Formats: sequence, C-alpha cells, structure tokens
Amino acid sequence: MYFASDNWAGASPAIAAALADVAAAAPAPAYGGDPWTARAIQRIRELFEAPDAEVFFLSSGTAANALAIAQITPPWGAVYCHADSHLNGSECGASEFFGGVKLIGLPGTGGKIVPPALADAIRQARQGDAHSVQPATLSLTNLTECGTVYTPGEIAVLTATAREHGLAVHMDGARFANAVAALGCSPADLTWRAGIDVLSLGATKNGALIAEALVFFRPDQANGFLYRRMRGGHLLSKHRVVSAQFVAWLADDHWLNLARHANAMASRLAAGLMQAGVTLAWTPAGNEVFAFLSPETDAALKSAGAFYHPWPARHVETQGAPGTTLYRLICSFATTSEDVDRFLAIVAA
Amino acid sequence: MYFASDNWAGASPAIAAALADVAAAAPAPAYGGDPWTARAIQRIRELFEAPDAEVFFLSSGTAANALAIAQITPPWGAVYCHADSHLNGSECGASEFFGGVKLIGLPGTGGKIVPPALADAIRQARQGDAHSVQPATLSLTNLTECGTVYTPGEIAVLTATAREHGLAVHMDGARFANAVAALGCSPADLTWRAGIDVLSLGATKNGALIAEALVFFRPDQANGFLYRRMRGGHLLSKHRVVSAQFVAWLADDHWLNLARHANAMASRLAAGLMQAGVTLAWTPAGNEVFAFLSPETDAALKSAGAFYHPWPARHVETQGAPGTTLYRLICSFATTSEDVDRFLAIVAA
Amino acid sequence: MYFASDNWAGASPAIAAALADVAAAAPAPAYGGDPWTARAIQRIRELFEAPDAEVFFLSSGTAANALAIAQITPPWGAVYCHADSHLNGSECGASEFFGGVKLIGLPGTGGKIVPPALADAIRQARQGDAHSVQPATLSLTNLTECGTVYTPGEIAVLTATAREHGLAVHMDGARFANAVAALGCSPADLTWRAGIDVLSLGATKNGALIAEALVFFRPDQANGFLYRRMRGGHLLSKHRVVSAQFVAWLADDHWLNLARHANAMASRLAAGLMQAGVTLAWTPAGNEVFAFLSPETDAALKSAGAFYHPWPARHVETQGAPGTTLYRLICSFATTSEDVDRFLAIVAA
Amino acid sequence: MYFASDNWAGASPAIAAALADVAAAAPAPAYGGDPWTARAIQRIRELFEAPDAEVFFLSSGTAANALAIAQITPPWGAVYCHADSHLNGSECGASEFFGGVKLIGLPGTGGKIVPPALADAIRQARQGDAHSVQPATLSLTNLTECGTVYTPGEIAVLTATAREHGLAVHMDGARFANAVAALGCSPADLTWRAGIDVLSLGATKNGALIAEALVFFRPDQANGFLYRRMRGGHLLSKHRVVSAQFVAWLADDHWLNLARHANAMASRLAAGLMQAGVTLAWTPAGNEVFAFLSPETDAALKSAGAFYHPWPARHVETQGAPGTTLYRLICSFATTSEDVDRFLAIVAA
Repeated sequence: MYFASDNWAGASPAIAAALADVAAAAPAPAYGGDPWTARAIQRIRELFEAPDAEVFFLSSGTAANALAIAQITPPWGAVYCHADSHLNGSECGASEFFGGVKLIGLPGTGGKIVPPALADAIRQARQGDAHSVQPATLSLTNLTECGTVYTPGEIAVLTATAREHGLAVHMDGARFANAVAALGCSPADLTWRAGIDVLSLGATKNGALIAEALVFFRPDQANGFLYRRMRGGHLLSKHRVVSAQFVAWLADDHWLNLARHANAMASRLAAGLMQAGVTLAWTPAGNEVFAFLSPETDAALKSAGAFYHPWPARHVETQGAPGTTLYRLICSFATTSEDVDRFLAIVAA
Repeated sequence: MYFASDNWAGASPAIAAALADVAAAAPAPAYGGDPWTARAIQRIRELFEAPDAEVFFLSSGTAANALAIAQITPPWGAVYCHADSHLNGSECGASEFFGGVKLIGLPGTGGKIVPPALADAIRQARQGDAHSVQPATLSLTNLTECGTVYTPGEIAVLTATAREHGLAVHMDGARFANAVAALGCSPADLTWRAGIDVLSLGATKNGALIAEALVFFRPDQANGFLYRRMRGGHLLSKHRVVSAQFVAWLADDHWLNLARHANAMASRLAAGLMQAGVTLAWTPAGNEVFAFLSPETDAALKSAGAFYHPWPARHVETQGAPGTTLYRLICSFATTSEDVDRFLAIVAA
Repeated sequence: MYFASDNWAGASPAIAAALADVAAAAPAPAYGGDPWTARAIQRIRELFEAPDAEVFFLSSGTAANALAIAQITPPWGAVYCHADSHLNGSECGASEFFGGVKLIGLPGTGGKIVPPALADAIRQARQGDAHSVQPATLSLTNLTECGTVYTPGEIAVLTATAREHGLAVHMDGARFANAVAALGCSPADLTWRAGIDVLSLGATKNGALIAEALVFFRPDQANGFLYRRMRGGHLLSKHRVVSAQFVAWLADDHWLNLARHANAMASRLAAGLMQAGVTLAWTPAGNEVFAFLSPETDAALKSAGAFYHPWPARHVETQGAPGTTLYRLICSFATTSEDVDRFLAIVAA
Repeated sequence: MYFASDNWAGASPAIAAALADVAAAAPAPAYGGDPWTARAIQRIRELFEAPDAEVFFLSSGTAANALAIAQITPPWGAVYCHADSHLNGSECGASEFFGGVKLIGLPGTGGKIVPPALADAIRQARQGDAHSVQPATLSLTNLTECGTVYTPGEIAVLTATAREHGLAVHMDGARFANAVAALGCSPADLTWRAGIDVLSLGATKNGALIAEALVFFRPDQANGFLYRRMRGGHLLSKHRVVSAQFVAWLADDHWLNLARHANAMASRLAAGLMQAGVTLAWTPAGNEVFAFLSPETDAALKSAGAFYHPWPARHVETQGAPGTTLYRLICSFATTSEDVDRFLAIVAA
C-alpha cells in the first residue's frame, strides 16, 4: 500500500516502451538534436495551443522551477509564492542559488495564495527603494502542495494583480496533469490564458520515470535559457531519454488518463476515510488526501505495510481531533482500488 | 557511420533491461532510498576498493564536474585544468556558476597537463595575497579530451605537486572506462592510489542512457554534498533510474567489455587511417581518433552518411598537411567493425 | 530638526580631525598595512577583552552583515533573524547574494526575537533532509531596528538555543554603541560572553563618516575572510581612511560619549512626547523613538523643517490612536536639546 | 621615497578640505540624496559631454569594475580583457563573483590587447553553442597595468571589433586621469566617442582618499544598477564622503593637474633611469615606470628607504640584463622631484 508519494511509482507500460525504443534505437544527435525531442516540443505546443512556446526538457522538477525563476526574475527580485510551496520549503534554496532571488512566502488555506495577501505584499514592498528587493515574480503551484486546485478564474485574479505591478508569473506544475484532470479544462485555459508565463510541466510524478519540461509561453522570456540550463549542468546529452517519455505521455490522452486514475483513487480514498469518521485537513481535488489519523490507526496501517508520511498541519480547513496527526496520502497511476480498499478496511477496523 | 560522439549511441541491452526492470517494478522509496541505489553504491565501493567512499548519482557529466569542483574548492580558489578540458571549454561556465571559482587553463600536448606547467602556475599565484585567487584544486581528465590517456604514474607526478601545495584533486572520468580498458590497470590504481580525491564517473558515454556518479574517496570532502546537489536541482526523485543503470553497468565486467569494444574499434579505425596515409593529431589510446582529412575525403564521407565533427588543432603532436582539417572520430560500444571498415574504404578511395 | 536617521549627521570633531591627519600624512602602505589599522585592531581587541579576535574594516554596514553571514553559513544554511531586521528587509538581498543563504524572519515585539519562536523554527526545519535548508546561523540586532535593546541575559538565552543546535551567532551592531551606552555593560558582556561569534560594529551612525568593522571572536571562523572581502570589492586601498576613524572613535570613551548623548536626546524626546500625550510604539532604550503622530502634528512639524520618516507599525507594544501614523525619530551625536525642545513645542501646540 | 603605489599617498589639500567640509556640515540626506552627490553627477556629465550618463559613486575600484562587468554581461558571458589586467589578476575573482562570468585573458605587449587577438578569441568562441560561454564584453584598462596608454584611435579599433560582434565595452580607469593627462585629449574622446559604454573612473589613486565612480554612457545599461550596488553592500550611507571628493577633484582642472604632476615625475624618473643605463620594460606613458634593477641597486635603494615592488616580466618590450629583476615604480600627486632625484642619485651611484 504505497501512499508515500507519486514519485515512488515506476513507469506506465507506454512510457516503459518508449524508453525501451530509445535504448535500442540507432545513434541520434545529442543535446536535443534528435527526432523525439522535436516531436515532443511540437506535441506540447499543440496541446497548449501555443505554437510559439519555447520548450526545454529537464531531469528534475526542482531544476525546472529554479531555472524558470532565475530566468524571469532579476537577482534583486522578490518572488511571491505560498509559504508552504515546494519552491519555498522543499528545494533547499535552489531558487536562491540559481537566481539570487528572495522568496516571500504568502499565507492561504490549503496551499492557495489568497489574493489580498499578494496585493498586500506587493504594496508593502518599497518599489524603487534600493534597500528593498523589488516585486518581480509570482509563482503558483497547481495542484497545490495540499492537494487543492486553482481554477482558471482563481489564477486569473492573482495574475491580474501580478500583471498590474509588472510581475512575471510562473506555475509549478509538478502535478499539472492532476489539476487538468480535476478541472476538465484545457491546458491553455489553466496556463497562458489565465496569465501564466512559464510552466514547470512534470511527468515524473504521473507515469514517467524522469521527465520534466519548461514551457515558456512568451518566447522572449526564454532568451539565453539554453546557456543558463547548460551552466546549471541540466543539458542532458542523450536528450531523447526525457523527450521520448513526453512523446509517449502526451499521445492519445495517456497523461490525462494516468492522472484521472490517480485522482479517482484519491477520491475513493477520501470518501472512504470520511465515511470512517476521519477528518481531512483540506478538500481533496486531485491525487492527494491529507487525513488526521489516531496513533492506533497509524500503527495498524504501518504494521499492515502501508507507506505514507506525516505533514505539518498549517493553514488547515478543519483541525483534527486531539491526539491525531496529519498525514499525506498520495495516489499515483499505479495505485489500485484494492490497495485503497485494503487501506480503508484497516482504518474502519 | 556514427563517429560524432559516444553520446549519440543508445543503451547496451543489459542496461536497457535494467531500465525496463525499474520501470515495471513495484513502487520504491524516492531520492535514493531504494535498493538499486544501495547496491550501486556498494558495487562502486568494491570496484574501487574504497569501502568508505561517498557515492552520489547524477544525470549529467557537467553536473558531476561542477558540483565536485564547487564542493572541494573555496569560492576564491584557482582550479588548474587543461586549457582544452571539458571543464574549461565545454561546460558554459558551470564550475564558475556552482563554485564561483576561477579556472586556470594549462598547456600540454594531447590534452595532458605537463607537470612543469602546473608547478609554474602554482608558483606564479600569489599565495596569501588577498588580490589573487588561491591555488586550490587540480582537475585532470582521463581519457583526455584528445583521446590520450594518463597512466597512474603520470597522474601521481601531477598529484604530488598538487599535494605539496595543499590542492585537492578531481578527475573528470566521462570516459574513465575507456581509460581503464586502455591501461588494463585497476580503478583504484588510476584514482585514489594515484592521488585522486574525487572522480566524476561517467557511464552515459559508455553504454548507459543517463548515468553519472561522483565518487569521493575522502569521505570528509563530501560533507554537506547532499544539500549542494539538491539546491543545484540534481537530486533525482526516481533515483533508481540512474543507479539501476550503474548496477547493470558494473555487473560482470560489462562496463569494461563495452569500453574494450569501443577502444578496439578506435584502434581499428586509427590503424586503417594511418595505413591510408592519414595524419593523426595525437596517438589514440582509447575510443577517440583525431584525424586530418582533406576536403575531398570529408565530402565523400559525409555524402556516404558518416557523422563526425571538426576539432580545433591546438597542441597537436603532428600537424596535418596543408589544406586538411582536424576531425574528431569517436567510437562507442555500438560501433561495428563494418562501420569502421566502410569508413576506411571511403577514406582509402 | 534632523530626526530622519543617524546617518544624516556629519562627523564628530575628533573624527574629522583624524581624517584630516590621514589626508595630510606621508604615504603609507595600502590595504591595511598602515599603522592606523594596526592600532585600531589592537584597540578593538582591548575594548572587547578579546586578544585573539580577528578584525576587518569595511565601508558599509550592509557589507559587514552580508560578508559575516556568508562567512559563517554554508550556502544551504538557514539564517534566523527578526522579520523586521535590516538584514531581512533593508539590504536588498545582500546576504542571499553573498552567501546564497535563506533568511528566516522570526516574529517578536519591538524587533526582539522571542526565544520560543527561535526554538520552534529550528524544530520545524527538517535537519538532515536534503530538501530543506539547514539551521546554521542566528543573527541578532542590538540596538534593534525598533530602538529596543537586548540585555546580555536575553542574548544568552537565544544563543544557548542556537548553540544547542550548532548554530553560529552574528550580531548586527550598526548601533552597538547605543546599546552599550543604554545598558552600561561591557562590550564583552554584550557579545562573546553572551554567545556572539561575530559582530558588525558600526561607527558610521555614531559620529564617524564611513567606518564599519567586523569582529570575529572565534578566529577560526575568519579563515579565508580576506579573500572573501576582496572578491566582494570590499578591501579598501587607503585602508587608514576607515581605521583612523576607529582609532579616534575608540579613544577616551569618545564612542560611548557620542552614544550617550544621542540616547539622552532620544530620552528627552520620548519623555516630552509622552507628556504631550503621544503614543510610542515601543519603549525606547537607545537613540530611536517611534511615535504615532496625527496628520496635523506631522504637517506642523514638516512645515517647521523637521525631517523624519514613517515606519510600518508591525509588532507594536501599543497601537496608536485611529488616524495616527507611526514615525521613526532618530537622534544622533549631533542632535541638540534645542532641536528636541523645538520639536516638542510644536507637538505640544 | 614612495614608489610602491599611488594608493599609498594621502589626499591633496583641496580634497582634504572637501572632506573637512563634509564632516562639519549640517546633516544631509543619506544614500546620495545630498547636494554634493547631485553636483558631482552634474560635473561628471559636463566633463564627459554626456548629459544622459548615469553616474554612481563607490568606495573601491574593484567594486566599480566587478559591478560594471556584472551589469553589462550575462552570467554565461565571456569577458575579454588583457591577461595581465587588474580585473583578471588582482581582484581575487570579483568579476566571477558578481557576474558569474568567465574572463578570457588576451595577450599583448605592455598591457595592451592587440586587435587580432581579440578578433581571434571571438572567432574561436562557439557562438550559439550552449556548451560555450558567449562573447559578451570587452574590458580595456587605460592607463594600462604596464603604464602604457591606449590612444582614442587604438581604442576605436578594438571597440569596432567588439561592436561588430555585439559586445559591450568597459574601461577600467583606475588611472584614467593619468591617461587623459598623457594624451591631452578630452575625456569624451577617450571614452564614449571611442566606443566605451561604461567607465570605472578612479580618483583614489590620484589625490582622493576613497572615491570611485561608475559612468554609464548608455543610460539603458544602468537599469537596475542601484539594486545591484546595494546588494553588493556598495551603497554608502554618508554618500557625500565620496561625492564631495569628486566635486573637489573635478573643480578647476584639479584632477588633471594632479595627474600631470604624477606623470611628470614619472617622466623625470624614466629619463634619469635610462640615462643611468637602466632598461625599462615598457615605454612609460603615464605615472608608472617599470625598470630592471640589479640586486645591488635594489639593495642600495631599499636601505635608503625607497619603497617599491617587483613585477612579473611578461610581454615586455625589452628584456632586462641577466641578473636583473623587474620592478614597478609609481609616482603620485605627492611625489616630489627631490624624491625622484634622490632615487636617481642612488641608482647612478
């Protein structure tokens, strides 16, 4: 029963097959000069209805985020993100390293920045005062770190504030597929049409083995990025290892089907937990469920071989009962309904 | 006829099989907590007879080099490397970015630093003078960028000078397997026994798809490295993608057999070229051959579908005939004797 | 009526005389090899009863802070400081630039970190987890940005927590003289005896024109600092310009007398304001007073030629009356009682 | 007999008086809001016939150089400078620190880059190849480190090559006054009219105590510079300390008169040395003389109280006699003809 993270899973059969093809294929130009890379770029442009988008492939989501932030933010820029975002709390200062920037963690229930908090923070910044870092970038995460989702309209409200003050906007889409699957909207609606400039598009957590992309919807913002990526050690020589996974991931709605499955497993899990009287910290929208469990339940699950981690109970919608601890339960494309039901049976017992 | 680079080739069947296993396996802990990673570390320690070595897996050779340099060099350190090394000329300033250091390019025929040049450079540095970067690190490449090889004895001479002045020593081993295969010595003899502190061990150019490792022979030099790697965006979540390739690569001398084949193909190519009267810039020791070709030969090869690139003719052993251009021809595990012979036939014609 | 900042004032006559001496003196070795520098170092060591302290002179307080932080913190380190500290809010990301570090702003009334906030923050850091910046440094400001003062005992409580978790401790002493004058304790009691490792000792705000020093009480922490300072562009050639000011500043308790005067003027101002019914945000301990003024009073003062700036009313002890705004009023060595009384007369009117 | 460096001297009486005025003046706005700063900017614009130039004041020449380079060069940029330039050899990697850039040291006799070397270096750079740092900036030093001078025409030849390839151009003018005095041309002719974009204008070595400026002739290149300066710790609070020195320095040709004196002393020294049969490494054009001295002469001078330093004999015009060593002899505004004649008398003896 693997609920620790969606990055514990292997690859979907389609992606495994793509990797096998790449491994066995004839030699091909390195550094992205291969046909898989060209195809993956083309496919991403089509999917996002963004024929001019600049697309780059990477091997880690942290690299995607930090390189994007560094690319669109001057070194003296303030980057507004949720206080509990991956960028701010789980990347060991990667954005600070790549960009020299200062991250300003904003509050908000369920991992979602509340618009007044953004407006306030920008207002408090002393624009034009050399002593103060200058408002430069907004970074949103969708799915959020708390498993909730921003709708296109919610994003548009935040990016309008950003735009008004000249900020660039980044989206950390490590679980972008889960967000699209959750909302049923188009990728374009959830990104550039809602004001997103650059997207970290993650496939690793949703069926791929090692596949991340950066999509610059405003191509001028990608100027010089190829050098920035290289000097960060992030230009892969056998580039097709990553791009071929994207080709397979994006073919025939495979990416969406994988995400829909993961989301459905999380819904089944959430419903069962609530039926069993378990309090959830936030309403789950995608493939993550945050549940307050008692020590007894936790012990029973662990001894039955369940994997999952605790999570800090900040900005919760509902507080758990005394004595309970908040845990994060993540479903992936590989999660089975049997696993979910077995987990729920133990909780119910 | 693929002679452009050993990073054009796909994966060896054994490594492809390892990747397929990883893709299909049950979920496993992320970030290196999986059994493949433990096994790969163990195997590398055994191979190098270095039970205390600290081993880290990475997705690119530039990342390995730059992270290693940053780890063992203070920001005000001078790093001595060959003027034509990958570090100095082909990583877009990655060492400068990660470490803030200054690379000092030293001369030497065939990509090998001549010991007096190192001693001179250290002597010229104004040690203890705040105005001057301070001698800190020596970086050697083996196989060199010119396809020649440092013997353990040659390395020991250079590292003795380094040691005398308190320098740490790094080896860029993007083609380390080819060097070991060329010399027939043990990995330990070619590294820590000869004075190497940290090795960038590359498998990508020799049968793997995406697999690099850093081996710190002096474990204290690895303190804090896990944070440095993370903030560089170089901690892979599905870590086993890389480590499983190393497990397969190192099993049953597979890595050496792959390198021996590549080296043998290069020998066959070099012998044939010389027989055809072609001048080689340097005596080939591994899987790279640098040949001066006439425009006619070049045109005939290109039109027959041969891939290879020109190379700057600096520090050559023998100058090519007027009108010829220096080209780099690289063989890989996937190069066939048929390819070599077809190439040679065109040259001879 | 100059209450905008203590860095608006010129130099005390004694310091002006020292500068005149330096200007007229015979040539002297550059970069600190001059006798003034030797004398200033000696004098600082004596004053702090720290014969082994390493002392460096600088031209700005931001440079002192950022260089110190970078020197004692690894790039992946978390630096705990007050949310409203100069380091965090008024240096445009200098610590992030010099050190790559992440500043964690802690709460606390009147610019003073409350000990449980520090302990909590360290506890929340995921020590040993590569995803998280690692607790590394505590930075205290004394006088605080709010004009309050940490006593040696209060410092000791915070540094004990820091020490327990292996943190280094920095003090931003831009107004250190005012703190010593306020407490009547010894410089040693307020620094290393209370657990401070390195002090930014500012003279510029207290009678000098351009004179800052870094004092490393643990000399091993200063290793390599001369190179770090140089590559930051902070090694002054005519070094004695700064060090001679320190010699004059530290002679015959001049520094303390200047600070006592500034503090006395602030006390007079605070007492008068309170008598006039003005609310102060925090109890003044040194040379800064934070007062809530009505728009009418503000207008009357401004039209009478008073200079001062507004200040964000965060973490106040007492909230001002509706319609009032918080202003910062700073006294310096050059403030006269006539100025203070004239200011008070306008407020009273 | 002080010939060690022009940064050993104190201040000219006029500049000392300016500092005394600043010290005694009434409080004034910090961070450059004072009238001296406005006046100094105005004066520099007039002098350079550049009404739109952006001017910033700094406390060290290394800061001026490194901040300028970082401002006009992308992090992946190659900066072409003379191999023996201050930037490359005497700033402990400041440009690398501030800008992340790679300095490419070019050869040339007497500290002057030969145009073909620049053109070659740019040609060798692999423009558009992500593996290679990209040609971005040319930095010239005038007076050069060897005491020679670039004429406006020589500068124009180099900047034309730079311009052709899209490079920005910086001039390190630590001894700019000596260059102008040597040539008798206008400051505009020696800078922007000859293709210079940004000038490090040093007064410290020529009569001031601590006064450097950056002059951006293309104001758009200064965008954001105020933040860059601040986060480098280089925004001085009592800004007028530096700007008032510039006001005095630039009044009534004071700066030129100081430089003319220093140059005249160097001419007298050079003439006398040559008359005494001493070999000079390069033809002196400004205030620096590089002479090969025998051990006996050196000992006699040292025991008579002369100060000067050895200098590496690279790229010399004339090699010294066997057994001699190259020394650098620098004259300043404070050098007297008595000192020069006494020095010469000892050499002649």
